[in-house]
Amino acid sequence: MTRYDQMPADALKQELQDVQAAFVAVKGKNLKLDMSRGKPGKTQLNLASGILSVLTDPADCTADGMDARNYGELMGLPSCRKLFAELLGCKPEEVFAGGNASLTLMYDVIAKAFTHGLLHSERPWSKEGKVKFLCPAPGYDRHFKVVESFGMELITIPMTATGPDMDKVEEAVKDPAVKGIWCVPKYSNPTGIIYSDETIRRIASLKPAAPDFTVMWDNAYCVHEFDGDFVPFDDILTLCREAGNPDMVFEFASTSKITLPGAGVAVFACSEANMQYMKNLLSFQVISYDKVNQLRHVRYLKDKANTLALMKKHAEIMKPKFDAVSDALDRELKPRGLGSWNRPKGGYFVSYDALPGTAKRTLALCKEAGVVMTSAGATFPYGVDPQDSNIRIAPSLPPVEDLEAAIEVFCICVRLSALEKLLK
Amino acid sequence: MTRYDQMPADALKQELQDVQAAFVAVKGKNLKLDMSRGKPGKTQLNLASGILSVLTDPADCTADGMDARNYGELMGLPSCRKLFAELLGCKPEEVFAGGNASLTLMYDVIAKAFTHGLLHSERPWSKEGKVKFLCPAPGYDRHFKVVESFGMELITIPMTATGPDMDKVEEAVKDPAVKGIWCVPKYSNPTGIIYSDETIRRIASLKPAAPDFTVMWDNAYCVHEFDGDFVPFDDILTLCREAGNPDMVFEFASTSKITLPGAGVAVFACSEANMQYMKNLLSFQVISYDKVNQLRHVRYLKDKANTLALMKKHAEIMKPKFDAVSDALDRELKPRGLGSWNRPKGGYFVSYDALPGTAKRTLALCKEAGVVMTSAGATFPYGVDPQDSNIRIAPSLPPVEDLEAAIEVFCICVRLSALEKLLK
Repeated sequence: MTRYDQMPADALKQELQDVQAAFVAVKGKNLKLDMSRGKPGKTQLNLASGILSVLTDPADCTADGMDARNYGELMGLPSCRKLFAELLGCKPEEVFAGGNASLTLMYDVIAKAFTHGLLHSERPWSKEGKVKFLCPAPGYDRHFKVVESFGMELITIPMTATGPDMDKVEEAVKDPAVKGIWCVPKYSNPTGIIYSDETIRRIASLKPAAPDFTVMWDNAYCVHEFDGDFVPFDDILTLCREAGNPDMVFEFASTSKITLPGAGVAVFACSEANMQYMKNLLSFQVISYDKVNQLRHVRYLKDKANTLALMKKHAEIMKPKFDAVSDALDRELKPRGLGSWNRPKGGYFVSYDALPGTAKRTLALCKEAGVVMTSAGATFPYGVDPQDSNIRIAPSLPPVEDLEAAIEVFCICVRLSALEKLLK
Repeated sequence: MTRYDQMPADALKQELQDVQAAFVAVKGKNLKLDMSRGKPGKTQLNLASGILSVLTDPADCTADGMDARNYGELMGLPSCRKLFAELLGCKPEEVFAGGNASLTLMYDVIAKAFTHGLLHSERPWSKEGKVKFLCPAPGYDRHFKVVESFGMELITIPMTATGPDMDKVEEAVKDPAVKGIWCVPKYSNPTGIIYSDETIRRIASLKPAAPDFTVMWDNAYCVHEFDGDFVPFDDILTLCREAGNPDMVFEFASTSKITLPGAGVAVFACSEANMQYMKNLLSFQVISYDKVNQLRHVRYLKDKANTLALMKKHAEIMKPKFDAVSDALDRELKPRGLGSWNRPKGGYFVSYDALPGTAKRTLALCKEAGVVMTSAGATFPYGVDPQDSNIRIAPSLPPVEDLEAAIEVFCICVRLSALEKLLK
């Protein structure tokens, strides 16, 4: 195989004809495959079946001196807070155990900042002239949409192999209108990288002009290795405290990709001063979250060691899927010099950077051939990728054989859109 | 027994000595009893034990063509929406099934109004000069606190035996700053009355000056009879639609007092136009609520007939508790002419109106004697009862024998505070 950028024009034209024929052929298969979201597949759901039957006797519903079935205990079941504290490396008093969605807890923090202000806010963000938020990109579309939904200005920060470009972040936070940053520190969505120690230290040591600047630390993939052993991480609350920024960070995590995606438990962790402040504001909106489900998780996951053992089983399912994707890209696209991508060891995504100006066309072709992927641009603020290049591949949902079919289609579409571009 | 208001002064003094002695005696018992909140008791929690084991096989987790365990279906499991539609008398498309707390859904509606505006808002309520909210009182403290937490002005509307004083409501809504009203139409919290058909018709037919005036219709006790058969009610969505106000109402309900208080399912119901509008705003904060728990409820409660049968079992537990309270009040306080109260046939509260100026003192005495009750004033906006008279009695949590001890203490404290007042 020859790199497209080294092919003479007539060879490119021949290649176009071949690839068009291949596209017509896969279209004829009438596929219906979904690689659009980071949804666990059915075999993963079945791994955690035990959680459905771990708490069936009402006599088992008492924990921490309370009946988990009744109202009460706004901050969540103490033993559940303890479990997450062990997973995250913080103190149980720093953990708030909520409902099934960490996104909701993130939204709550931003919404509270907007309506009431955070602990160190001079006023609610709704009363500020302009509020800006740092969005390392490519990043997670739902993060960006939370702040966009409140009318904030989204500032793109380039992602690097070690995390957000910290020179740009340190410069940006000199603007008092810049109120926070989104971070997925481990197996970043979608690039799959782990922030370097240096990046994390620089984030914890930021000296933002805004007194209520907030690091939204979404540790969604904190124990989500699929290739190799658990990679330890430092507690961000401790790092921020040691850097003199104890109240600057809210950390988020959940069991959505440990037990059941739609029926897990989500938490946030923050300084005890922040906790006191948030507890008061949250007390207006909820009496308590579902402690029965929290207790199911405590009984089922038990502790960090047992949780990591479960994650090993997820890894056994996930690794062949990621290998199928990476192998196909290596085989079909690398020799042709088409694009660049990572080979992550955890998380839920492969981030593929296509020839600039071809991402949208590639995904339109995929759709035409029955393969749904995350929309082009979704990984950038406002859904607009200035390079029209980044594509998020989510291999978790389809079974391996479907995935192989889907990635074959994807590679054909990448080649086709590249050839169209090169021959224009 | 003689009415206190007909006793000569020396008889009152003798009575004071007797009651003081009785107070010292009960204090000596070192009781620790809680009648502060409408929490179901342990025997009620055990009624719904079947819900813990109704869904233990992963093969049973598929419903409505989807796997309840995975992400997705923001508005909730279709069969769960259908179940609540049957209970409320509306259409499934008008129901949004959420997490475990209806309070959270109510908060969401008000928070959205504040940050983004509702369907017919000219601007977000945060951008209005002044926002006022009608609070029929005595009412539910958590309702009042939701709107208070957003800095709204709370307007007290007197409660009558047939619902909020509608002359006052119709007058108040002429003010365009008045944006809504809280209603608990059936077994009102705390007065236990059911709004009359006439009141409900007048609410549905309101012609408020504010285009986005919203009726917050908390149907918390829609199937919660404990004395007598289920009392049918008209669908408020239909009534509002027929009165030309299709988008004026949000209705709320939950299974918190049907299955498990901390682990139930909550819903809101509204017009399809409102649903479309809310769905968009809610999509930023959650991917989907806990559909596994929704499915547990569908499998366990099945339908309205089966739900009503379960409520009959709750009634068997609740009626003796309410009887214990009512009987004690009838026996100890009625002959002495002390206060007035209702004898509800459903819901969770008895509302007791003490001699004006004695509610706080009564509850301070109760606390001194080891009986915790809802704070005096809690049933009024800003926690201030201008008459210092209303006391909410919540008989559901303690077992009957504890309840009898607690209500004995309460009656002694009512008498003592009345005597102190009369003799001042």
